[in-house]
Amino acid sequence: MTTLPIIHRPGTPSTSNAALLKKQTIARLLIQCPDRPGIVSAVSSILSDFGANIVSLDQHSTDPTGGAFFQRTEFHLEHFSAKRAELEEQIRAKIETPYGAQWQLTSAAQRKRVAIFVSKTDHCLLDLLWRQRRGELHIDIAMVISNHSDLAEDVRYFGIPFVHVPADSKDKSAMERTQLELLRGNVDLIVLARYMQIISDDFLQEVGVPLINIHHSFLPAFIGAGPYQKAKDRGVKMIGATAHYVTADLDEGPIIEQDAIRVDHTDSAQELMRKGADVERRVLTRAVAWHCDDRILRHGNHTVVF
Amino acid sequence: MTTLPIIHRPGTPSTSNAALLKKQTIARLLIQCPDRPGIVSAVSSILSDFGANIVSLDQHSTDPTGGAFFQRTEFHLEHFSAKRAELEEQIRAKIETPYGAQWQLTSAAQRKRVAIFVSKTDHCLLDLLWRQRRGELHIDIAMVISNHSDLAEDVRYFGIPFVHVPADSKDKSAMERTQLELLRGNVDLIVLARYMQIISDDFLQEVGVPLINIHHSFLPAFIGAGPYQKAKDRGVKMIGATAHYVTADLDEGPIIEQDAIRVDHTDSAQELMRKGADVERRVLTRAVAWHCDDRILRHGNHTVVF
Amino acid sequence: MTTLPIIHRPGTPSTSNAALLKKQTIARLLIQCPDRPGIVSAVSSILSDFGANIVSLDQHSTDPTGGAFFQRTEFHLEHFSAKRAELEEQIRAKIETPYGAQWQLTSAAQRKRVAIFVSKTDHCLLDLLWRQRRGELHIDIAMVISNHSDLAEDVRYFGIPFVHVPADSKDKSAMERTQLELLRGNVDLIVLARYMQIISDDFLQEVGVPLINIHHSFLPAFIGAGPYQKAKDRGVKMIGATAHYVTADLDEGPIIEQDAIRVDHTDSAQELMRKGADVERRVLTRAVAWHCDDRILRHGNHTVVF
Amino acid sequence: MTTLPIIHRPGTPSTSNAALLKKQTIARLLIQCPDRPGIVSAVSSILSDFGANIVSLDQHSTDPTGGAFFQRTEFHLEHFSAKRAELEEQIRAKIETPYGAQWQLTSAAQRKRVAIFVSKTDHCLLDLLWRQRRGELHIDIAMVISNHSDLAEDVRYFGIPFVHVPADSKDKSAMERTQLELLRGNVDLIVLARYMQIISDDFLQEVGVPLINIHHSFLPAFIGAGPYQKAKDRGVKMIGATAHYVTADLDEGPIIEQDAIRVDHTDSAQELMRKGADVERRVLTRAVAWHCDDRILRHGNHTVVF
Repeated sequence: MTTLPIIHRPGTPSTSNAALLKKQTIARLLIQCPDRPGIVSAVSSILSDFGANIVSLDQHSTDPTGGAFFQRTEFHLEHFSAKRAELEEQIRAKIETPYGAQWQLTSAAQRKRVAIFVSKTDHCLLDLLWRQRRGELHIDIAMVISNHSDLAEDVRYFGIPFVHVPADSKDKSAMERTQLELLRGNVDLIVLARYMQIISDDFLQEVGVPLINIHHSFLPAFIGAGPYQKAKDRGVKMIGATAHYVTADLDEGPIIEQDAIRVDHTDSAQELMRKGADVERRVLTRAVAWHCDDRILRHGNHTVVF
Repeated sequence: MTTLPIIHRPGTPSTSNAALLKKQTIARLLIQCPDRPGIVSAVSSILSDFGANIVSLDQHSTDPTGGAFFQRTEFHLEHFSAKRAELEEQIRAKIETPYGAQWQLTSAAQRKRVAIFVSKTDHCLLDLLWRQRRGELHIDIAMVISNHSDLAEDVRYFGIPFVHVPADSKDKSAMERTQLELLRGNVDLIVLARYMQIISDDFLQEVGVPLINIHHSFLPAFIGAGPYQKAKDRGVKMIGATAHYVTADLDEGPIIEQDAIRVDHTDSAQELMRKGADVERRVLTRAVAWHCDDRILRHGNHTVVF
Repeated sequence: MTTLPIIHRPGTPSTSNAALLKKQTIARLLIQCPDRPGIVSAVSSILSDFGANIVSLDQHSTDPTGGAFFQRTEFHLEHFSAKRAELEEQIRAKIETPYGAQWQLTSAAQRKRVAIFVSKTDHCLLDLLWRQRRGELHIDIAMVISNHSDLAEDVRYFGIPFVHVPADSKDKSAMERTQLELLRGNVDLIVLARYMQIISDDFLQEVGVPLINIHHSFLPAFIGAGPYQKAKDRGVKMIGATAHYVTADLDEGPIIEQDAIRVDHTDSAQELMRKGADVERRVLTRAVAWHCDDRILRHGNHTVVF
Repeated sequence: MTTLPIIHRPGTPSTSNAALLKKQTIARLLIQCPDRPGIVSAVSSILSDFGANIVSLDQHSTDPTGGAFFQRTEFHLEHFSAKRAELEEQIRAKIETPYGAQWQLTSAAQRKRVAIFVSKTDHCLLDLLWRQRRGELHIDIAMVISNHSDLAEDVRYFGIPFVHVPADSKDKSAMERTQLELLRGNVDLIVLARYMQIISDDFLQEVGVPLINIHHSFLPAFIGAGPYQKAKDRGVKMIGATAHYVTADLDEGPIIEQDAIRVDHTDSAQELMRKGADVERRVLTRAVAWHCDDRILRHGNHTVVF
């Protein structure tokens, strides 16, 4: 399995050539640093000097005086690729060095390559596959990896490679080594779409790309396994789902998105699971879309979502 | 203070005489028992024999065969008061004894008498007072009791008695004894509308009427004090509120109602508090309305809300 | 095409044998008639005489005295099929005749046979197909009929017959005659899942089964074509979708379900279309599920949904 | 009545002195113009030159190339008042003239003076009064004007002048002349909080400040009178409310905010009215808050709400 040639899937062209050309001139700049007067001005004057037109600018400061500063700027710039190196140099000189800023510059035309991890349930996976195919999610799905083979046929129908990497109860690290070989250099993001295996710290340290998980409760309520049964036992009147970045602490990573729906006494734990599935897929899809549109900045255990 | 004559407030007539007359012919029967075939039929044939017309019937069984049975029946019966004793006798003979049922028969015209406990914040209190005044809440507010005097003027503007019973940090039981004297025989329900004092087990055992509390989080998340700050610290994307019956276990009583709203990174803990206040008043008002319309059946730590 | 043998699709067994056996003992009785005392009692005593256990009972009267009466009763009865004829006779004698009631008795095990009409967009269709496959929708999808061939492969992947019946701009009645031949005797419900052809009055009169349509606006706002563009032009802050029974008056049939989501100034008409698609599939799926679980009673241009 | 001395109400100090001092250093700049590269840069470099720190920046372009440009910038500037004239001069020279921009510069400390027009219903009015008193709405309520006297006592309890200006069915213009005399120079905004009189074109042209109205339906559904009865007649499953700027065309002005809630067959038209009242007050309060925080830009019949 480790010799499987991962071919970068060309994918169904989800946008027209015109749309693609338009996208090639759109870029995004994410910045975060300690807040000080002048950052917005410094960024916008660089862009102005390059003749770029700011399409969308979002900015957040945690406090009017002092605090942390976050900015996302989406701009239109003809021949972005050709000018990119020069632009990055300017950002380093005028933003990174003077303001101590972390930054990231991306092209809207450069789709994130995503691996989806699943186990047996299909609702989150299928929603991602459908939306990618319809052009709603601007991502390339490089592969789907599962510890079960149940969903192979569904995935392959979409023309996406499905790789079955079974869990070995005696040596879990073997599974993770195989996963890491498949992923290395091939993906920009891993999405755990109801993947029912614990991710080890070693995996997190080695994989080198962020992971987004969907937890089937309204965190921090009902951390851990069996949240729908716990919700039923507690007699709650709403259930929810939470998408978060994966960190070493289970269900404790920075929350990206949450949503909730009403339930009542007539709903069994199984019915909560069914209703919750709709919330899960909605929440996960939004989180993935926002991440892949470079809308999220992480700050400690928080996220700023522009 | 303990000699304060609690006069049953006649109240602003929130419904016309015609509406009141109509209400006097409407009654509600709540039943719960182990599920067995024939209960619905037994209830409806009693009502049919009395010439009552069923206006609304809600029924819930926890399982098609076996399990627990719950029913709320609202019916129209001319001269209900005159026929009440005879009807109760029939219910005892044909429902209580054969089915081992607990039941409760109430007249829609008989409003619940409610005491509201508050501390310093006004949003839940004002919403209750105002809805009672405009006839949305079919209750009589017998008194408002507070450990602070801040809200006295607001309460009295609505023509409701306000009693200041300060907390004595050395002897908390003194405050509760005073409260109990004020309440005894005068109220059917106590509403804790952001009352920031712990209710003792002794009080709960002696008071003899149910208490509804509003907790300013989406339970079981953020149990205890300071839930908005905790929510800010965790970086959640939604906040909520929970109305529940008060039991000896803090924030662990049967949940009646919950709701939630979206928040984002721009919201400070103080802003969460402000936004949350809107959810709190909405959730508490619903819970009080449902209780006072005899819509809630308690079953262990759960509620059935019809 | 008219000779196509429509074989009743056995379908993926979406529920276990145990669940199916359980379903075979569950039946539903829908009743509507002028309101008079005694109907609930008459129904429940019939059921009690047969040894049936009422699992769920919903009842609505438009007025406490007089008005229209509606009731849905779900009950558990061993050997329902064997007792059905006798039960129907009792209903006729004790309910239909004395109360002038319309009624309908169905077995929960008898799934509705559904035809889905589509054009080119897939979101509503795929949600229905997928929920049927995973056992959330208790229906059999007999066929998908489209005036385009775009969605053939997707439909057949689910093992469902897809029939392409092109629209003939010169003679529209030819298309409808073909559709009617395919449908006759084979389906209990037609779902228009974003079907972009007007249904003629002749078709409605001949087809003999109800049709449910999804309209992509919050009716009665934006009746007719292009509702998302109209919504953009008006500058609304929410968009919605409406599922309704089809009648001779376009977009004027009885509303079954509606929902809405927030939008803002950044959303183009195309983005409204994308966001609205999520509401459409949610609303249509609910309407179909409720219809097929016998939860809907029609009354003039209104629906009672239990 | 026309001689009534309108004293600028000092009001309950809803924010502490510290908060007020903080506010005095916060200003907001709204800009709209045809989109061209360099505007963001021009604005931020002016602010940077003054040593201002941008607290929040929102920007919207209707198209990446061409289209209309909108920007709201909230910034912190010590001694804003002293520097204001000079800042305005720079804006005129570097933004207004070169970009053909409309702009507005306001101090966060300068509260908008608001007149509320009401008739007999209190729900929208009271919500505004409560929130203003609690410091949630950063406005001064200069007066409440009503064509009825019903709400006088409630308004005066809050220390707000209440002026009864009866409608004269023979000469409506007399009422409006009186209103205009009361308003002239005293208010920055008029809020129609369920004011049941048509505003004449003459009034709109003379009053010189914007008007916000709450319409009790989800516009453009149910334009005109009696929307709840119309909603009941149509059998909708959700009802809503719409806050909009008032223009000469009834219910056709630019929409600021909308919201909706679920209803069902059990709700009478009166119950729709009651449930809708909660949506109305929520929607109107948000619209007023956004307007008074300078978050709204009007563009033709649309609003950009930052």
